[in-house]
Amino acid sequence: MFRRIHVIGRGRVGGAIAARLEAGGRLGTAGDADLVLICVPDAAIAEVAGAQTAGPWIAHVSGATPLAALDPHTRRFGVHPLQTFVSWRGAEQLDGAFAAVTAEHDEARRAGRALADLLGLRPFDLEDGRRALYHAGATMASPLLVTLYRAAARALEAAGAPPETLLPLMRRTIDNDFALTGPAARGDRATVEAHERALKEELPELLSLYRELSRASGR
Amino acid sequence: MFRRIHVIGRGRVGGAIAARLEAGGRLGTAGDADLVLICVPDAAIAEVAGAQTAGPWIAHVSGATPLAALDPHTRRFGVHPLQTFVSWRGAEQLDGAFAAVTAEHDEARRAGRALADLLGLRPFDLEDGRRALYHAGATMASPLLVTLYRAAARALEAAGAPPETLLPLMRRTIDNDFALTGPAARGDRATVEAHERALKEELPELLSLYRELSRASGR
Repeated sequence: MFRRIHVIGRGRVGGAIAARLEAGGRLGTAGDADLVLICVPDAAIAEVAGAQTAGPWIAHVSGATPLAALDPHTRRFGVHPLQTFVSWRGAEQLDGAFAAVTAEHDEARRAGRALADLLGLRPFDLEDGRRALYHAGATMASPLLVTLYRAAARALEAAGAPPETLLPLMRRTIDNDFALTGPAARGDRATVEAHERALKEELPELLSLYRELSRASGR
Repeated sequence: MFRRIHVIGRGRVGGAIAARLEAGGRLGTAGDADLVLICVPDAAIAEVAGAQTAGPWIAHVSGATPLAALDPHTRRFGVHPLQTFVSWRGAEQLDGAFAAVTAEHDEARRAGRALADLLGLRPFDLEDGRRALYHAGATMASPLLVTLYRAAARALEAAGAPPETLLPLMRRTIDNDFALTGPAARGDRATVEAHERALKEELPELLSLYRELSRASGR
């Protein structure tokens, strides 16, 4: 569907996307593109979109930003790669990731899916009005997973154990389809209380996080 | 070091361990064992240990239980596989996992490491008095990771997105050495506020978990 795509913004996401498009001979310029793909920080999208001349399709790759940020353009959509990107990896970061396609009509939805395919992403539909909730979930699954790991690693370090020993455990927890094991699953209240006493004494700043997650486990 | 090991308890952990020992020809009985390995629930360890006749080495595989639970035996140690075990997998669950070896003297530490080697575990030392803190960290890394995933999956489902799309994101977050990305890392306060509004409206029971983890991210 798209022959030439002009990528604006070469941060971690824009850089990976541009590399993929370049490898496929689809990277265009402001002059020849039939799609302008905005990969700038969320807060800058509206301004960048407003400055584009009418004509080609326009899209952004933000998770939380509504399509209204692409005003006044109407041939528009959003493709959000549900992935975490780092500067030390390249276009292969897109492989196997899903992507939320947000569109206001069928032609735009087809356009969004065509872009996802071109990038090696697996598209699924997301309503524009559900983005904030969706993105809150995505945030729990990555940045807040980092927070949880750091807390767990601090507890291990404080106990004199190497934190990297947690990695096979976390990977297997995912591979086991998140089967719940451990003291809470066994109804072992005494062990949970021992954890709380140890945290209170040694790492009190982690106690409320442990308690909040334990409480949520029971629901 | 050990020729025959008598495994008491065939739950998920005891079953995997017995299978590994049987495959290596090391599974013993109460009559011929030079090590009695207690794989029963934490609350039952002391009673089972107390009922053993003196003579062979004795050990348990619990994360949080102190060695005193093995009284009155003194040739004793603990080997806790830092892994989550499910009934639908076998002995290969031990492969690549680390194991916390707790011992009160060098001979017992060598015995614990010998058992870990025999089981295919990668041993590291853990002080008996640091077990509760260590196990609190292990609990964050697996059962509380399950809780975090379930919360994230609920947000995606409520947004009309398939929750399994989160898996490549969570796996890559681990593979990227927990590099922090997302709104908090970018100092994007507006997006964090949009998440909180959406959760408050649609899934208010997840709001305190989101807030507690976000707060911990800033530390």
